[in-house]
Amino acid sequence: MRAARCDALLITGIENIRYITGFTGSSGVLLITDNGGIFFTDPRYTEQACKEIRGFKVREYKKRVPELAAAISEAGLKRVGFEDSDLTYQAYHELGKELKGIKLVPLKDKLGPLRSVKSKEELRLISKAADIAYKAFEKLIPSVRPGKREDDLSVELEYLMRRGGAEGLSFDVIVASGTRSALPHGRPGSKFIKKGDPVVIDFGARYKGYHSDETVTVFAGKVSERLAGIYQTVKDAHDRAIDAVRPGVNLVEIDRAAREFIDKAGYGRYFGHGTGHGVGLNVHEWPSISPNSKGVAEEGMVFTIEPGIYIPRVGGVRIEDMVVVTKDGCRVLTKISKELAII
Amino acid sequence: MRAARCDALLITGIENIRYITGFTGSSGVLLITDNGGIFFTDPRYTEQACKEIRGFKVREYKKRVPELAAAISEAGLKRVGFEDSDLTYQAYHELGKELKGIKLVPLKDKLGPLRSVKSKEELRLISKAADIAYKAFEKLIPSVRPGKREDDLSVELEYLMRRGGAEGLSFDVIVASGTRSALPHGRPGSKFIKKGDPVVIDFGARYKGYHSDETVTVFAGKVSERLAGIYQTVKDAHDRAIDAVRPGVNLVEIDRAAREFIDKAGYGRYFGHGTGHGVGLNVHEWPSISPNSKGVAEEGMVFTIEPGIYIPRVGGVRIEDMVVVTKDGCRVLTKISKELAII
Repeated sequence: MRAARCDALLITGIENIRYITGFTGSSGVLLITDNGGIFFTDPRYTEQACKEIRGFKVREYKKRVPELAAAISEAGLKRVGFEDSDLTYQAYHELGKELKGIKLVPLKDKLGPLRSVKSKEELRLISKAADIAYKAFEKLIPSVRPGKREDDLSVELEYLMRRGGAEGLSFDVIVASGTRSALPHGRPGSKFIKKGDPVVIDFGARYKGYHSDETVTVFAGKVSERLAGIYQTVKDAHDRAIDAVRPGVNLVEIDRAAREFIDKAGYGRYFGHGTGHGVGLNVHEWPSISPNSKGVAEEGMVFTIEPGIYIPRVGGVRIEDMVVVTKDGCRVLTKISKELAII
Repeated sequence: MRAARCDALLITGIENIRYITGFTGSSGVLLITDNGGIFFTDPRYTEQACKEIRGFKVREYKKRVPELAAAISEAGLKRVGFEDSDLTYQAYHELGKELKGIKLVPLKDKLGPLRSVKSKEELRLISKAADIAYKAFEKLIPSVRPGKREDDLSVELEYLMRRGGAEGLSFDVIVASGTRSALPHGRPGSKFIKKGDPVVIDFGARYKGYHSDETVTVFAGKVSERLAGIYQTVKDAHDRAIDAVRPGVNLVEIDRAAREFIDKAGYGRYFGHGTGHGVGLNVHEWPSISPNSKGVAEEGMVFTIEPGIYIPRVGGVRIEDMVVVTKDGCRVLTKISKELAII
């Protein structure tokens, strides 16, 4: 509030609301003022909110915008900070129309880092999510072989994670094989895995709101020299990025460690995404690790390291781990070996 | 474009982009001008976009906002309509700063109805999704009995839908039993189903981008007179709303048909959500069926009818079907019987 010179904050991002209040539902708005605050939700969530939330009043609305505006006006507020990276222009505009003499102040990226340094308890939940994903993948591995369909593998892996204790998936499991592995976000299709195919499997489990994210690329039966070389390049880039992680290092340096290595190997134009992203209550959150990153790594941050090389009509390799920044480096939270695996 | 007096439209909602271009990825922006248009995406999706999109140029960006702004400026555009219900205030503001002399015009709800009337092919895909969900539920039913855990049932139902051909879930399956059924969006927990519990199961399958949505409330072993009465009230309200559906009827009248019946039975304050919502490429889309609805039903619209009564510390009942508006009424797309079921 002080940084934005506001006398209240309007929190609309549902993960920020969960982080601040403990509310696990999917709809609501939090108004934080100097003397506490009010959580507004619709009747679907009133009972749940009253059970879960301590430290804030809970108020039910029928018409969100006018009732929220009335509460802000009644509280005598003058400058209300809002999450401009979350609120749509329409919602901003509608609320603004109802607020006479009250200024809505965009918080810009001030709240971005709010959740980026994880507590011990958060690390426990993220590690648990990663562990569920790991155990599920270990059970899946015997099925990853020529003749299996991509979508069948995705169904099995999702089921194994859910059976293993995941309350949900971080996202629909990606399984992309053969030349389809050149699609970084290839949706699993009816394609059968063939001998020699690279198979990219990107997956994660959700546990008590916290996510894991990991990508494994394996080879079915054998691997061409070219793809083995690409694999080793990605693996080395991945290792260099992990080696670069320590408190105080510029995030852009972590990206550069991977990117320069891939550039020098001649594959620069085939690595078209960032090196990583934060993971927590959201599977993609602050900070990003890319050529545009600002800021530095801090102890307790959790993010992915996931370089990749994707060559159209040939194939792709991505290797992704999740790390937590420690006092003098980092610790890898995901557990599957990333050495070249021919299965 | 004409309605908003614009010479271009900036489409950012990913389902609208899919609807217009056929692109199935999850990131991109579409600029539509008089002489065609450009689809912008990041390198993760370039190959996929080139394969899927016809009728629009595909351009890859490294930095989204400046490159988009440059393209808009180069095209000599003056007024660009944008999806203010999708674009965040931050993205609007950043783009606006780069656009000198070009006005961004909020489209308000003009694009809302774009996808609300479904084509025959869309109806086929939605029906297929509903069919997958139906068959999965039929297989689940023998497991819904006292002694089973809510979360185990949700895992099984998700697996059955995926095995049955769903490419994903419409949302995490809701299973809420006993007094927890009074939470309209109760996340399945470790609770065991007890004899006499109402069990609310809300679920849907996704098939080629299209969703289904259906809710069944069953009773485990026996049902109290009170809950049986509530069930019948919800069922009658549901039937009345369905009877009210026909082309030309005000959407608010469909809501009223269910709401007035529940009101008169004395449960008005326990029905805290709208009667329904559109379903298609998004599981919640235009139109909404609520006391605030504007507009009328049109032939080909698909929406849910899902009244409910939720009494804290007692239990809840919700009955949800998906209907398509036909020439002289509507047809129910979801297939599970909604008669009182004691299982």
